[in-house]
Amino acid sequence: MEQIDVHRCFGGQQLRFRHPSAVLNCDMTFSIYLPPQAEQGVVPVLYWLSGLTCTDENFVTKAGAQRYAAEHGIAIVAPDTSPRGEGVPDDPEGNYDFGLGAGFYVNATQAPWSNHYRMYDYVVEELPALINEHFPVDGDKMAISGHSMGGHGALTIALKNPGRYRSVSAFAPICSPMHCPWGEKALANYLGSNRETWSDYDSSELMRSAQRQLPMLIDQGDADNFLQEQLKPELLQQAAKEAGYPLQLRMQPGYDHSYFFIASLIGDHLRFHAQYL
Amino acid sequence: MEQIDVHRCFGGQQLRFRHPSAVLNCDMTFSIYLPPQAEQGVVPVLYWLSGLTCTDENFVTKAGAQRYAAEHGIAIVAPDTSPRGEGVPDDPEGNYDFGLGAGFYVNATQAPWSNHYRMYDYVVEELPALINEHFPVDGDKMAISGHSMGGHGALTIALKNPGRYRSVSAFAPICSPMHCPWGEKALANYLGSNRETWSDYDSSELMRSAQRQLPMLIDQGDADNFLQEQLKPELLQQAAKEAGYPLQLRMQPGYDHSYFFIASLIGDHLRFHAQYL
Repeated sequence: MEQIDVHRCFGGQQLRFRHPSAVLNCDMTFSIYLPPQAEQGVVPVLYWLSGLTCTDENFVTKAGAQRYAAEHGIAIVAPDTSPRGEGVPDDPEGNYDFGLGAGFYVNATQAPWSNHYRMYDYVVEELPALINEHFPVDGDKMAISGHSMGGHGALTIALKNPGRYRSVSAFAPICSPMHCPWGEKALANYLGSNRETWSDYDSSELMRSAQRQLPMLIDQGDADNFLQEQLKPELLQQAAKEAGYPLQLRMQPGYDHSYFFIASLIGDHLRFHAQYL
Repeated sequence: MEQIDVHRCFGGQQLRFRHPSAVLNCDMTFSIYLPPQAEQGVVPVLYWLSGLTCTDENFVTKAGAQRYAAEHGIAIVAPDTSPRGEGVPDDPEGNYDFGLGAGFYVNATQAPWSNHYRMYDYVVEELPALINEHFPVDGDKMAISGHSMGGHGALTIALKNPGRYRSVSAFAPICSPMHCPWGEKALANYLGSNRETWSDYDSSELMRSAQRQLPMLIDQGDADNFLQEQLKPELLQQAAKEAGYPLQLRMQPGYDHSYFFIASLIGDHLRFHAQYL
C-alpha cells in the first residue's frame, strides 16, 4: 500500500492510497479522512460509495464532510467506483453508465466483466480488512452511505450485511436497479439476462426479505432530473411499508442531483450515523 | 447577462452567469451564492478572488463556504481569474503562472496585455456595478477575500479602496509580488520593467502608505510549499508593524496551500467578515 497524497483538514488528515487489489485484479486508489480523534485512539468509520463517473476524489473535494467527521470523531473511507487500469474492459461504446466509473457494487458473473468487476466483494471484504489493518479505526463500528449508484451500493450492501453495519444512509439512491434503465443495462451485462439473479442487488427486493433491520436515512431532492426515470424512491417506500422496515425517506424541496445537494445535507447524515456508532 | 447554472444549496441558490465585459473586452463568467436571507431582502456581499489556474468554480465547489454564508446571511461573488476567450493572449510558453488564469488583479499597461488584462477595474468597478444592479445585495456592505494570487488581489484592492470594503481577509496570499518570482514575472509583463509602477500593486508597499485601516485577517499554513519563495508573509508583517496597521496574521500548523486548508478555515473568515457587515 502506497500513500499518494496527504493534506491537513479540519485538524485531521485527508489521505490517499494506492494498493493492489486481489479481488479486482488491478491497482486501486482510495481516500480516507482521519479526524483529530484518531491521533488519540481508534474511531468509528463510515464508508462512502460514490455515483456514476466518480472516483474516490469527488466526495473528498466537494462534499465538505470532513468538518462533520471531525466534530463527531468519525473516519470516512471513499473507494473508487470501479476497477481501473490496463486490461480492465470498459463499455464498448464508452458510455458513462457502464464499465469504468460504473461498477454498480456487484460481483459480475459474465465475461469479460467477471475478471475485474467485483466491487461488492471489494467494498464488503477486501477494503475493510485493509483499512482495519492499517488505520486506527474500530472495525466493529462501521456505517455506510452513498450517492446515486453509490446510494444503491450502500443500501444493498447494508441490507445484505446488517450485522456488519450500525446504520445506512443514502442521497438520491437508485432504489430499484431492476426497474430503471441504468440498472437494467448494468445488471444485464454484469449478471446476464436471467432477471432472478438481479434481485440479489435490488434494495427494494432485498428489503422485503430483510431478517434484521438497520437505521436507514434517505434524502432525495425533488428537483432531481433523474428522480422519475432512474431513482424511483417510491418503490423502496412501498417495500418498506410492506416489510415494516423503518425507512426515513425525506423529500428535499428544490434540491437536484449534484454535490451541492450532498454538501447541504451531509452534516445531517454524519449526525445520524454518529448516534449509532 | 445570461444565467448558465443554478443549484439549491444550504437553502439558498448557487448561481452562475455569463456576461460581456466592457473593461476586459471579452465575455466573462462569474458565480454568486445567494443565502436564504436574500429571498426576504438585501444582504451584504463578500467578493472572493481565486488563485493561479482557477476559474470561478474552484471556490464554489471545494471551499464549502455556502454553509457559513447561509448562517450569516452573506452573498458570495466569485469572479474568474483572468479574461478568457478568442483573442485573449496567453503566456507564450503556456505556463500556469501568467496569462490565462493568472490576471493578478492588475490593470496591464503593456502590449499585448493591456487590451484585455484589466482585472483590477473589473473587480473594483464593473463587476460590483453589475452585481448591485441585478441581485438583492447591499452595495454599501462589501467585504473581500481570496487565496494566494487572489489573496494578493484582495489585500491590494482593499488597501487601495478602504472606503469601499468593510473588512478584508486572505488565505496564503502573495504578500509582496515585487519580491517573489510569480509576482516579478507577472508585474514585469503586465506593467513593464519600471519597478516603481509595481508598488501600486504590492500589499506590503501599500500598507506603509495606508491612510485608513480596515480589519484584516490572514491565515497561512506552515506546511505550504510556496511559503518561503512566493508568499513571504513576514514582509507584510514587517510593513504592518512599521505602519501600525492592525493585521491579524495566523500561522496554521500542518496546513498546506490546498482547498483543504481553505475549507478548514473559511468558516472563521465568514464569521470575521460578518462582524463588520
